[in-house]
Amino acid sequence: MQSGITPRDKDYNQWYLDVIQAAKLADHSPVKGCMVIRPNGYALWENIQQILDSMFKDTGHVNAYFPLLIPESFMKKEAEHVEGFAPECAVVTHGGGSRLEEPLYIRPTSETIIWSMYKKWISSHRDLPILINQWANVVRWEMRTRLFLRTTEFLWQEGHTAHATEEEAEAETRQMLQVYRRLAEDYLAIPVIEGLKSEKEKFAGAVRTYCIEAMMQDHRALQAGTSHNLGQNFAKAFDVTFQDESGQRQLVWATSWGVSTRLIGAVIMTHSDDRGLVLPPRIAATKVVVVPIPGKKTDPSAINSEAQKLSQELELGRSVIVDDRPNLSPGRKYHHWENRGIPIRIELGPRDLENNQAVIVRRDTGEKSFVPRAELKAKVIDVLEDIQKNLFERAKAMREEFTFNVDDQASFIEKLNQPGGFLNAHWCGETECELRIQNETKATIRCIPLDAKEEKGKCPFCGKDSRQRVVFSKAY
Amino acid sequence: MQSGITPRDKDYNQWYLDVIQAAKLADHSPVKGCMVIRPNGYALWENIQQILDSMFKDTGHVNAYFPLLIPESFMKKEAEHVEGFAPECAVVTHGGGSRLEEPLYIRPTSETIIWSMYKKWISSHRDLPILINQWANVVRWEMRTRLFLRTTEFLWQEGHTAHATEEEAEAETRQMLQVYRRLAEDYLAIPVIEGLKSEKEKFAGAVRTYCIEAMMQDHRALQAGTSHNLGQNFAKAFDVTFQDESGQRQLVWATSWGVSTRLIGAVIMTHSDDRGLVLPPRIAATKVVVVPIPGKKTDPSAINSEAQKLSQELELGRSVIVDDRPNLSPGRKYHHWENRGIPIRIELGPRDLENNQAVIVRRDTGEKSFVPRAELKAKVIDVLEDIQKNLFERAKAMREEFTFNVDDQASFIEKLNQPGGFLNAHWCGETECELRIQNETKATIRCIPLDAKEEKGKCPFCGKDSRQRVVFSKAY
Repeated sequence: MQSGITPRDKDYNQWYLDVIQAAKLADHSPVKGCMVIRPNGYALWENIQQILDSMFKDTGHVNAYFPLLIPESFMKKEAEHVEGFAPECAVVTHGGGSRLEEPLYIRPTSETIIWSMYKKWISSHRDLPILINQWANVVRWEMRTRLFLRTTEFLWQEGHTAHATEEEAEAETRQMLQVYRRLAEDYLAIPVIEGLKSEKEKFAGAVRTYCIEAMMQDHRALQAGTSHNLGQNFAKAFDVTFQDESGQRQLVWATSWGVSTRLIGAVIMTHSDDRGLVLPPRIAATKVVVVPIPGKKTDPSAINSEAQKLSQELELGRSVIVDDRPNLSPGRKYHHWENRGIPIRIELGPRDLENNQAVIVRRDTGEKSFVPRAELKAKVIDVLEDIQKNLFERAKAMREEFTFNVDDQASFIEKLNQPGGFLNAHWCGETECELRIQNETKATIRCIPLDAKEEKGKCPFCGKDSRQRVVFSKAY
Repeated sequence: MQSGITPRDKDYNQWYLDVIQAAKLADHSPVKGCMVIRPNGYALWENIQQILDSMFKDTGHVNAYFPLLIPESFMKKEAEHVEGFAPECAVVTHGGGSRLEEPLYIRPTSETIIWSMYKKWISSHRDLPILINQWANVVRWEMRTRLFLRTTEFLWQEGHTAHATEEEAEAETRQMLQVYRRLAEDYLAIPVIEGLKSEKEKFAGAVRTYCIEAMMQDHRALQAGTSHNLGQNFAKAFDVTFQDESGQRQLVWATSWGVSTRLIGAVIMTHSDDRGLVLPPRIAATKVVVVPIPGKKTDPSAINSEAQKLSQELELGRSVIVDDRPNLSPGRKYHHWENRGIPIRIELGPRDLENNQAVIVRRDTGEKSFVPRAELKAKVIDVLEDIQKNLFERAKAMREEFTFNVDDQASFIEKLNQPGGFLNAHWCGETECELRIQNETKATIRCIPLDAKEEKGKCPFCGKDSRQRVVFSKAY
C-alpha cells in the first residue's frame, strides 16, 4: 500500500509536511506564515494543555487573561526587550475606522502589558508572590515559517510571576524548567537536556534563560521550552515596588516561562516514521482503534456489534473508537489509522470470535499479538504503557548515539555535517567567538547543561581556556 | 462592616463595577476598551469552558484553531458581513518592520477565514458534516465599553459547521441554541427566553439568528448567546460546493454559534447583591470556605488543624479552602469571602468542636445552620444544590414579576421606563416601525419567542395587524 509519505532518508523536510498532511494535523492558511490547526492537531494541544495546566495548579499557579494589544510606548520601556521584539511585531494602526493616536502591537509576548498591571496590584509584601499563567495566542512576524515549529501566529502559555526576593524568583524559574522537563519526558516521551542559554541566546530582557533542548530524528536540536529569570528588569521598567516587612520600598523580582504549539512539531519529529505519525499514548486523543473484519460472505452486523462490545469492555471512554465503515477494506483502514499515529489497533475477525481472542497491533513496532478476550483490557493498558516507554527509550538511544565529544575544529565541523547531532565542545565563554562559530558552521550553543562537570580545556575555535563543555548543534 | 460596594438602588452601574473590583474579577487595562480578566474572573471562564466543551463533544463537535488575522479581501466577500463588521475592526497595516501589501483585520468573528479553508477541505458529501468549534479571542472596536459585557477584545467560542442539507443546518442551529439554554439555566442559574432575532437584529450574513435572552436585576435584557443559520451565504461567497450522492455539485449549508466572556457579566448581574458577588455553585471554583475561629486565649493551631481535617472530610478537592490567616478577624474573613461570592462558609469555633458540629452559612440567603460533623459532607452537597436551585428560581420569579403584556403606546412607554422589564407587545413585522420604536423609546426587539402563541392584535405604534407578541426591552 502506498503511504503517500516521502521517506525520511529521501527528503526529511518533505516527510515532515507529508506526515502532517496525512494525519490532518494542520494546514497552511491564506495568511502568510499563519497555520490552521486542524482537529487532529488541536486535540494534541488540548491534551498538552490539560497536563500542563494541572501541573501549574499543583504548583500554586492560577490562570488569567491580559489584552492582545500592547501600546508601542510600553514595548519601549525595557531597552533589550524592545530591541529583541519590535522588529518582529505586527502593528495595528487603525481601529473602528480611524487612525489610532498610538500604534498598538499585537503581543509577541506579554511581559510589558502584564507588568503595567502588576504595578497596580502590588504595593505590599502581602501582595506577593503573584503566580499567574496565561493561555494565549501571540504573533511574531517570521520570515521563514514551518508548520508548528515556526509560525507567525502560535498558541502558547506564558507564566509571569512576581516575587519578593531574588532567591524565590530563581527557585521559581528552576521549578518551571522541571515542570517542562516532566511534560517533555513523561508525557511527550521526548528526552531533553536542561541547560542555561548563553548571553547571546537568552530572552530579550532576561537575566538568565533556562531551556530544555531535544534532538530530532535528523539530529538537529529543537528548543522545547524556556524559563526566564527576569531579575528586576521589568520591575525597573514599570516602576513596580513593594513595601517589605520592615517598611522599606523594594523592587519586585520576576520570572516568565513558556511552551508553545511548537511542541507538537517536536512530537512529530521525534517519534514518527515513514508510515506517518506515531503518538505517545499519554497525549493521543484516540489511543485504540478497533477494526472489525467481517467474513467474506457473512453479514457484517454481528462482528460490528461485537467490536462495539469489545470497545466498551476496554473502559477507555472517548479514547477508543470502532472503525466499522462499510466499503473500505481492512488494509485501507489500517493505513488510515497508522497515518494518524493511533498507538494500538485491535483487529477482530471471524476466527478471533471463534477463538474468543483479538489481535493487538502496536503502532511503534508493528508487533502483533493474539490476546484472549478476558485478558484484553489489562493487556491494552500494559501495551500503552510499554509504547510510551519504548518511544522515550528509542529517542534517548538515538540522542546518545548522535552526541559526540569533539575537541578540535576539524572534528567539530566533520561531525556537525555528518551525521550531525549534539557536539559537546569547550567554549571560551565569549559572544564574539560564539558568533564566529555560528557564521562559519551554522551551529549554535543550544545550552550550557545544568549537569555539566567542571573540566579544563581549550575552545576549539579560539584556543582560549574553557572550564566546561557546552552543547553545540544545528537547530530548528 | 463597610462593604465598599455601592448599593444597587443607589447606582446600579457603580454597584456592578464595585462588585467586580471587590471580587477581583477583572480590571481596566491601559489599552482603551480592553480588560484584564483577573484569576478570580478567569476561573469562572475556565469552568464555563469545561462545561460547554463537554457538551460540544457530546454532540459530536471537535475543536480547531484558525488564524487571528484575516485578509481585507476575505472580509469583503460576503456583502452583509463586511457591512456589519468592517467598521468595528482593528487593522494591521505593518508587520516585521514593513508596510503590508494587503491590510489584515483582526478577526471580529471567523466565518470568512474558516470558509476559505472549508473550500479546501470539502469536495464530496463524504466530507460532510464538518462540526468544528474554536475557543479564541476576537476584537471589535467598541465605543462604549463595560467590563465583561462589552469590551474591545473578548474571549469566546465560535462554532462553524458545514452540512449537506438545509434541514441538517437548521437542526444544528436549533440544537446549539438548546446547548446554550442548558448552560444558562442548569449551570449559570440564569433563566432565558429562546427566540428568533428580527431581520434588523440578526447576525450580519445570517439567514436566521436564534438567541437566548436574560433579564438582569435592573430589568434590562442581556443577549446571552446566539446561534445562526447562515444558509448558503458563505458557501456562495467562498464558492464551497460538494458532490452529492447522485454526482451533482451542490452549495454547502452553514451554521455558526457563539457565547463569550459576556456570560460572566450576566452571572454577576443576575445573582449578586449589595454585599458583593453571588456565584451559582456549579461554576464557582471555590464552593466552600472553612473559617476556623480560635478561642481568645488558646493556641490557634489545634482549631486550624481541625479545620484542615474537616475540609478533607468534604472530599471536594480544590473546591474547598481553609482560611486560617492569622491577624485577621473572623468578621473580616466573612466579608472577604462574601465579596467573592463563595456559596458556603463553614465556621468552626471551640464550642463547635466541643459539640462535634460546624456552622454552615449560605451566601445566597445568609441562613445559618448548625450541622453535626457526621452529617456535614452530605449537608454541604444538599445546600450547594439548593443554592443552585434557589438562585435560578429567584431570578425566574424576578423575570416573571417584570414581564408585562402591553397593548398601547402609553402603557408600553410607561412600563418601559418604570419599572422596566420585558414587554410582550404586538409588532407589525416591519423594520421601519422597529427602528421608530427604538428611536422613540430606546427599546429593541429582544426576540420573537419560539414558544409564542399565535394571537391576533395591532402594533401599538403603527396600528397595523400583528399575529403574535414579541419581546421588547431596553438592553445591554
